[in-house]
Amino acid sequence: MKAYALLGGPKEEWPSDLSNVFRRANEAGDLIIGVDRGSFLLEQLGISPQLAIGDFDSLKKRELSQVETKTPDIRYSNPIKDLTDTELMIRAVFEDYQVSDLILFGATGGRIDHFLSNLFMFLKPAVRQFAPRVTLIDQQNEIKFFLPGKHQISSKQEFKYFGVMNLNSVKNLNILGAKYELRDFNSSDPQIFASNEFKTNSHEFTLKFDSGIVSVIFSKDLERFYRI
Amino acid sequence: MKAYALLGGPKEEWPSDLSNVFRRANEAGDLIIGVDRGSFLLEQLGISPQLAIGDFDSLKKRELSQVETKTPDIRYSNPIKDLTDTELMIRAVFEDYQVSDLILFGATGGRIDHFLSNLFMFLKPAVRQFAPRVTLIDQQNEIKFFLPGKHQISSKQEFKYFGVMNLNSVKNLNILGAKYELRDFNSSDPQIFASNEFKTNSHEFTLKFDSGIVSVIFSKDLERFYRI
Repeated sequence: MKAYALLGGPKEEWPSDLSNVFRRANEAGDLIIGVDRGSFLLEQLGISPQLAIGDFDSLKKRELSQVETKTPDIRYSNPIKDLTDTELMIRAVFEDYQVSDLILFGATGGRIDHFLSNLFMFLKPAVRQFAPRVTLIDQQNEIKFFLPGKHQISSKQEFKYFGVMNLNSVKNLNILGAKYELRDFNSSDPQIFASNEFKTNSHEFTLKFDSGIVSVIFSKDLERFYRI
Repeated sequence: MKAYALLGGPKEEWPSDLSNVFRRANEAGDLIIGVDRGSFLLEQLGISPQLAIGDFDSLKKRELSQVETKTPDIRYSNPIKDLTDTELMIRAVFEDYQVSDLILFGATGGRIDHFLSNLFMFLKPAVRQFAPRVTLIDQQNEIKFFLPGKHQISSKQEFKYFGVMNLNSVKNLNILGAKYELRDFNSSDPQIFASNEFKTNSHEFTLKFDSGIVSVIFSKDLERFYRI
């Protein structure tokens, strides 16, 4: 079973077909989750999550009632806590629901402190192990996370570019078989290697490193942003 | 003299009054800069930058011609290079133009590899020293950067929240006099402390740390994102 979660990020950053994604996931029997305000946004899309987690501070009373009535598993978080709502959700879906993979929508855009929390949470011991099974998706980007080792990364048709970022200290980071290669890069600081591309006629590259957590960000330009 | 730069990020993330900001800056004799596609976006706003930097790959020939005709100082970058267009621009404005401060617009949203590059560039030795004089602004966030020491951070009326993030290894990070305090935090990994607030009746907090670069992200919710 896969899991699909909607967080509270602005709808302007959602993929255009998001309500269909959730509808199809629902029909396939996958787990649907709402995180905080995302629970109510799902209700507004006509989809009731099976699991909702949050302090729900940003919801009006009747909005929260609607979520409470329709959600079988609702968990109230404490705003003063070590783990964020999203981190609590990640532990719940992998430990309690035993899902195979988790796709996060609504994790980008809007408040940048929220987005950075969603990106850097995988450095925390409580969720680190789940990093390779989580994907963040918005209208222009798809973000994956890797633990040390050798990984073959396949191209994705709609994304022209990819960036590679060590989220923390990294040893012997290699990007091999891509347009711009990197060999045995070592750094104690995070660094992003942006705007890389797959080689012509090649559909994969090798990502290899010995320590740290590395994120691969697939991205594309949207033509409508080119003009005012 | 201050400097105002427009990068290539999507207009959806711009502050709503951006063309007025540039118009007023122009009238005040401040330096206006376009980075890559941002140069052409400025032209479309009716404002000619004094300085344009980029490889201009994403511009059509006649669009680039328009920028070239109107921009007194235009610098062509090499796409295969150690410094990004934005990093080259930062060095140019502080070293060649001797500006006091730099405000970046269009640095967020869109391609996440670009945004992360704009945020983490201050870890690079080539631009690190300029970090405290640069501010990133979009419609919901204002981001500042701090070098080690003790800093009094003042509240900003329109922003309810702030987050504090050590971009790299940090020693003895303190957030004092805020709603949620942090004392002598040490970490080799980046971590974000999101959704903090100023204390009631207090208009500042103390940020103190001994090593690393720390970012403070002021943010606000936008009511229109609450509903679909």
